[in-house]
Amino acid sequence: MSTVIPEVVSIHDASFAAHVQSLLDHKTKPVGSLGMLEQLAHRIACILGSEAPQLQEPQIVVFAADHGLAARGISAYPVDVTWQMVENFMAGGAAVSVLARQHGIALNVVDCGVARDFAVREQDPHDKLPKPGQPRLWRRKVAYGTQDCSQGPAMTEQECALAIRNGVELVKKLPGNALLLGEMGIGNTSTASLLLAKLCGTSVAEVTGMGTGLDADGIQRKVAVLQQVLAFHQDITDPLQILAAMGGLEVATMVGAILQAAVERRVIVVDGFITTAAVLVASRLQPAVLERCVYAHRSGERGHTLMLLELRAQPLLDWHLRLGEGSGAATAWPLLPAACAILREMASFASAGVATKSD
Amino acid sequence: MSTVIPEVVSIHDASFAAHVQSLLDHKTKPVGSLGMLEQLAHRIACILGSEAPQLQEPQIVVFAADHGLAARGISAYPVDVTWQMVENFMAGGAAVSVLARQHGIALNVVDCGVARDFAVREQDPHDKLPKPGQPRLWRRKVAYGTQDCSQGPAMTEQECALAIRNGVELVKKLPGNALLLGEMGIGNTSTASLLLAKLCGTSVAEVTGMGTGLDADGIQRKVAVLQQVLAFHQDITDPLQILAAMGGLEVATMVGAILQAAVERRVIVVDGFITTAAVLVASRLQPAVLERCVYAHRSGERGHTLMLLELRAQPLLDWHLRLGEGSGAATAWPLLPAACAILREMASFASAGVATKSD
Repeated sequence: MSTVIPEVVSIHDASFAAHVQSLLDHKTKPVGSLGMLEQLAHRIACILGSEAPQLQEPQIVVFAADHGLAARGISAYPVDVTWQMVENFMAGGAAVSVLARQHGIALNVVDCGVARDFAVREQDPHDKLPKPGQPRLWRRKVAYGTQDCSQGPAMTEQECALAIRNGVELVKKLPGNALLLGEMGIGNTSTASLLLAKLCGTSVAEVTGMGTGLDADGIQRKVAVLQQVLAFHQDITDPLQILAAMGGLEVATMVGAILQAAVERRVIVVDGFITTAAVLVASRLQPAVLERCVYAHRSGERGHTLMLLELRAQPLLDWHLRLGEGSGAATAWPLLPAACAILREMASFASAGVATKSD
Repeated sequence: MSTVIPEVVSIHDASFAAHVQSLLDHKTKPVGSLGMLEQLAHRIACILGSEAPQLQEPQIVVFAADHGLAARGISAYPVDVTWQMVENFMAGGAAVSVLARQHGIALNVVDCGVARDFAVREQDPHDKLPKPGQPRLWRRKVAYGTQDCSQGPAMTEQECALAIRNGVELVKKLPGNALLLGEMGIGNTSTASLLLAKLCGTSVAEVTGMGTGLDADGIQRKVAVLQQVLAFHQDITDPLQILAAMGGLEVATMVGAILQAAVERRVIVVDGFITTAAVLVASRLQPAVLERCVYAHRSGERGHTLMLLELRAQPLLDWHLRLGEGSGAATAWPLLPAACAILREMASFASAGVATKSD
């Protein structure tokens, strides 16, 4: 299978952007006084190409997979936690389940490569939509986890291509105009650190953090393993090859989803370290994906700050979240429709009969 | 009239706080990995005294009044903007109107001392509740604005006492368990700067910013006027006297509202610079009010950072908002019920059958 990468064209339109800015500047408030709320409104208007943006049927997608590298002791948690948390997402007890319910976001969970078979679920017999408010499990398993990438590539080129295609096709089936990214995979902060180090030339020690809860010794062991991985793959430079080499079936599937969401001009709400790593990879394939992204938060995971800088991204929240699952994206979500409402519904000085600045 | 200050007793309960922390620590996530979302849940649980906190019928109250000092050219906007914006709040076109509607927050506007009479409104004939979703105007005018506080006290002791009582009595009439603070009053960033400088001994130049949009020269003129005010009132030290001297009928009414909300253990959602100034005054009268506060955001107004430090407050958003009206409190609002849902609804490791950390 050859890898098909959807083409993402730039949506930048200077005159439309100026028009939206002018609408914001004439609202009944001092110019710029709603700070990031205005910037967010502007961003979403430009993504959707609408001066009266409406976010509809937001979909959070939690991409789940296992990692061969986890056998090397790079995580504080046992690998079984990946499938157990998938069950927890479906049962409604995880953070992302609670937040999705709270904010009316549809919850989709994708088995991209979990090392266990899930029972076929009654509410999801043939990829039909579950009852409203129920999470949906998408079976898109490419393998039972990746290979140990310190000994070879995490996945084959074919597996990587299939995962990307799965992500593309999945997004085509989703309603709405906003995609919130989430992930689950014991060991995947290592994947994110590796992708950042390799794609941006950053030292791995600088971009490696505690993950779900390593202590200082654990972090040191993790850095040593990641250095081995980078040494093994030092000769490759192509982003797709790097993605296959360092893996994450959930990251590869997410890359496909990001590309397709960008093609469709959906608002892409990026979560933390791992989902931003997927955006980083996608942006190396199609740079215009970045025009469609909103960054929910700055993670407590140290590499994330460097990654956000690399992408010139300004996150909405700085809350030291480091859970993943899309919990940050879901937390920040209600700020987005509020920003749209400001642009759609606020009066102008003229329409409200309010005097403007005296000077 | 003598000033009646409700007594606010401490609600600190170390064993309950530890119990709530333990509940959070056993949720299906690494300990502490939901960062400020957990801290927020903990805070609200302790304010409401419930391990399964539910926020109900949130009320935003926008306290409006005019300022004699505004005649000294300390604001970028003409004083008529105060009443015009009150009309805009009632008509639904202001930022706070849009955000309150968006998030299902009841909008109350209080005329504490606007320099103009408002027509009696059909939807508010005798302080009856308006239709659901309609804003409500409360007529609690103490004077047609304050006096110029560079020449004497902004209000008399009696006026200050009446405004505080109005705030106390108003909150007694409001349903729900959360009070979001907002304000409107051309010139009131000056009031906030004065209160901060006087109560905390900070230099006025350090705590004076652009307000709604002064340029550098304007800020310099503003600082000079504020220095005159401080010099005139240099001998007073009592917080109530300082409040009366430097005024803000909206600030005095808000102080009463904060005290009563604290007595009733409502969650007090603090907005920006001016509402935080009211909290600062209230805390000098009854320090335990601070236990009931959640700080929505760090304002773009420079004195606000110093004020938050003084109160050891950690704001939720850092968005450079500087509009007032309660726009920051309303923007941050949905983060609060989400935090409560995390505490109420997330599964524990035991209940979900998820393995815990290996080490």
